[in-house]
Amino acid sequence: MERNIYLQTIAIEDAVARLTAALNRETLLTPQRLPTQDALGRVTAGPIFARLSAPTFHSAAMDGIAVRARETFTAREGQPLELTKDEDFVSVNTGNPLPEGFDAVVMIENVVLDGDTARIEAPAFPFQHVRRIGEDIVATELLLPQHRRLTPYDLGALLSAGIWEVDVFEPFRLALIPTGDEVLDYTTRPEPGPGQVVESNSVMLQAMAAEWGWQATRVPPVPDDLEALSAAVDMALASNAHCVVIGAGSSAGSKDFTRRIMEAAGEVLVHGIAAMPGKPSLLGVAKNGKLMVGAPGYPVSAVICFEKLVRPIAAWLGRTLPETRPTVQVELTRKLPSRLGSREFVRLAVGKVRDKLVGTPLARAAGQITTLTRAQAMASVPEQVEGLEAGSEVQAELLTSTGELDRTLLVIGSHDNTLDLLANELMALAEPVRLASTHVGSMGGISALKDGRTLVAGAHLFDPESGDFNFPFLERHASGLDVRVVNLAVRHQGLMVAPDNPKKIKGVADLAREGVRFINR
Amino acid sequence: MERNIYLQTIAIEDAVARLTAALNRETLLTPQRLPTQDALGRVTAGPIFARLSAPTFHSAAMDGIAVRARETFTAREGQPLELTKDEDFVSVNTGNPLPEGFDAVVMIENVVLDGDTARIEAPAFPFQHVRRIGEDIVATELLLPQHRRLTPYDLGALLSAGIWEVDVFEPFRLALIPTGDEVLDYTTRPEPGPGQVVESNSVMLQAMAAEWGWQATRVPPVPDDLEALSAAVDMALASNAHCVVIGAGSSAGSKDFTRRIMEAAGEVLVHGIAAMPGKPSLLGVAKNGKLMVGAPGYPVSAVICFEKLVRPIAAWLGRTLPETRPTVQVELTRKLPSRLGSREFVRLAVGKVRDKLVGTPLARAAGQITTLTRAQAMASVPEQVEGLEAGSEVQAELLTSTGELDRTLLVIGSHDNTLDLLANELMALAEPVRLASTHVGSMGGISALKDGRTLVAGAHLFDPESGDFNFPFLERHASGLDVRVVNLAVRHQGLMVAPDNPKKIKGVADLAREGVRFINR
Repeated sequence: MERNIYLQTIAIEDAVARLTAALNRETLLTPQRLPTQDALGRVTAGPIFARLSAPTFHSAAMDGIAVRARETFTAREGQPLELTKDEDFVSVNTGNPLPEGFDAVVMIENVVLDGDTARIEAPAFPFQHVRRIGEDIVATELLLPQHRRLTPYDLGALLSAGIWEVDVFEPFRLALIPTGDEVLDYTTRPEPGPGQVVESNSVMLQAMAAEWGWQATRVPPVPDDLEALSAAVDMALASNAHCVVIGAGSSAGSKDFTRRIMEAAGEVLVHGIAAMPGKPSLLGVAKNGKLMVGAPGYPVSAVICFEKLVRPIAAWLGRTLPETRPTVQVELTRKLPSRLGSREFVRLAVGKVRDKLVGTPLARAAGQITTLTRAQAMASVPEQVEGLEAGSEVQAELLTSTGELDRTLLVIGSHDNTLDLLANELMALAEPVRLASTHVGSMGGISALKDGRTLVAGAHLFDPESGDFNFPFLERHASGLDVRVVNLAVRHQGLMVAPDNPKKIKGVADLAREGVRFINR
Repeated sequence: MERNIYLQTIAIEDAVARLTAALNRETLLTPQRLPTQDALGRVTAGPIFARLSAPTFHSAAMDGIAVRARETFTAREGQPLELTKDEDFVSVNTGNPLPEGFDAVVMIENVVLDGDTARIEAPAFPFQHVRRIGEDIVATELLLPQHRRLTPYDLGALLSAGIWEVDVFEPFRLALIPTGDEVLDYTTRPEPGPGQVVESNSVMLQAMAAEWGWQATRVPPVPDDLEALSAAVDMALASNAHCVVIGAGSSAGSKDFTRRIMEAAGEVLVHGIAAMPGKPSLLGVAKNGKLMVGAPGYPVSAVICFEKLVRPIAAWLGRTLPETRPTVQVELTRKLPSRLGSREFVRLAVGKVRDKLVGTPLARAAGQITTLTRAQAMASVPEQVEGLEAGSEVQAELLTSTGELDRTLLVIGSHDNTLDLLANELMALAEPVRLASTHVGSMGGISALKDGRTLVAGAHLFDPESGDFNFPFLERHASGLDVRVVNLAVRHQGLMVAPDNPKKIKGVADLAREGVRFINR
């Protein structure tokens, strides 16, 4: 059994810095000229100076009449000034050029029109309701600096200034190569047999790339075969991609070929980051100067590798900073263990309880993509912190919009399938509510209620003394708390047997009998 | 001169509510089935239940050896347990299925391999380092609720769960019709003559639509001609668009046909919102049930119409909430007048000074698109507020990312072109800095410095007594303040004359002479 020398972890920032020091962005990611209307989201390669002024003429800023201000000074309330059409005034609509010799506009609301006569009861000052030449843009002025990511507003300003084409950097292009004998190509709609999984990371990474304005191609999964993998990587390096991403095989198992292949194609600069998930990430530079990435196979690890390593490197290549997510301060509902020396990215179910945001850590496993689909935020626990206590505050980046967070209903406690059905129904409201539930058992839910760390708690606690459910526990553990109890479901617990109960199972004792097999729910 | 009855303004929320009450979203925006990998950003039309579990088998969560936990209980430090290959252990890589009968994995780091023998010095507990069936996803569980906007993570989860196709709502489609005799089609790269402007709103609105996941088509500008406009609107209403947007002509000028055309095609429900900019917005429903919008012609008004009216209506049609921008608390550097009864959207130059965000209002004119390209945030001053004092706090939505805001350098004071050059150079840094400058004159800059409302102030103040620049004023008005003075430029002021000064201009007095024409800088 041959194994790679295991990875030496370094901090995320150091990993990124190692790559930006080794890559030559002047030759790797170059400018191109685009029609302005096609340049949304692109980054300017140089400063852009206005070619035209906007407006290019004095124009009416309101609907009304154009006048000569100096001729209106006698107008006042009760002593209207009479103006004659074409001689003393000209009717204008918003945007019309001011006729030669006229220098002010009186709003139509303040004019009494009577045939060819207009009456006004207040003087106009020079340039009243007039948009002057260059009010918005002056020809030759710096309209946009270099390295600016173009917004919709920028496109409007550029066209207004007569800039029909812009020099912008090309988009970051990646070639994704999923690998693994056990992974199945989702495009064939496979039915996985034992030991097989559907390859889905490449689609997730392609979608992330699309959201960031990158272009990502993907090939079907390549088996764990050194020759086949090398051929796929060589082909990708010869394409127009700036970066080749090898999916999975980045760790140190006997079939983890990624490092070896990257070493053959160029140089490995980083193998391992001091972070969980995402630890077995690989970064290198190919002989032809392109970026090579070995992304871990677990989906959450692959996400961290992309968000924390590839994204800042790509932003630097594209002469900008990555657009960061907003961060929020979150109070933890429970203890959050963390390993010293490793940055831990913990997915949190977050909601507002009274005026504060509270968060419950979801499962830590890097293989659980649903921790990302269920989370509202992701906390990053620094390397030097060895766990956080319940009730402590943690910084977390938001995975939803702040608006959605305001409409997230936090549920902590015991789980029941009706909660999922409820979550689905709440999304159908005119103003949808997102239900974020984490499962810590009935008593955990009640203490979260008591501590002000949830809005709803699921509980199914039976009190043998009183024969009642839940109420005795609320009285005992959360007395005085103003709660409403809703009966969501009645559960019947028991043993499910084959039709007609051929083995005559009467109770738990029968499960121990020869020939009886019991499967947990 | 024929004029429309002028608009009756209503609150933005009421305008939106009027439309959502009148539109039938069940028939207007319907579901479609898409391959999962193509559904990024779309909204689910129904709940999605997992078809497959993930993983579908117990698998190794680490590289190492699979063992039977109960056979390892005697292993301890200094007393290694010897295991025989294939009999007592099997080598496994991460992701491999656990061989039949084995129930735990020992990490390779904790194993000493010697031919067919493995030695371990600690017992394994059952299911140690094992990913169990369904750890991530359990077949039949609710994977995603209805009306959920699909994220990259969601796509990964869906494919993992064997969901190859999803039912999602179609994207919101709009047909944009720019109008106006004076506007030129930017695609022809025109040179505007007197009274002409380049039509750019349609591109800006198309780009905003693209960012929101909508699809927008555009036709070349239609002249202010009732027949031509009606024909264009009829064609757009007959297309597959859900919404027809008529650009400009929404006000009450003599050539503002939009309202009349909308009345002919259906019903006008809103003409005028109690907001500035954006007031002359028009909303209606066509006879065939489609949304009709008359967007004001000024670019900032058109933006407000889109962001505050069309966006929430479209989100409601698409069964979701619009993704909101993060909001921040900003301290105003100067007084902000505001009209009672009207919500005012004020663009702000915002930056961090010490630990607080401070903002300076930019020009209010709805015609100035550059107020949007230069702003970092947009404050909304409520209807019932009649202006805000300098130093007061205002809520503002961010137009940049929070990360970019941290790297924004605020400059308040006198303007000089070198500030633009500086702005351009700062964007070339490895970590770009965005310079946000507003111009309030030299003394305004110095008082902003003193009040902690700017980091940099531009000043060119001459003190005739001492013959010195700037320093005497700093001493007088900001003494004790720890500032550094940088000489950015030396200005020469004077009169620019024709070559060889044919009119023999010596000073300002000569400007009054017959035949001499003076043009301001």
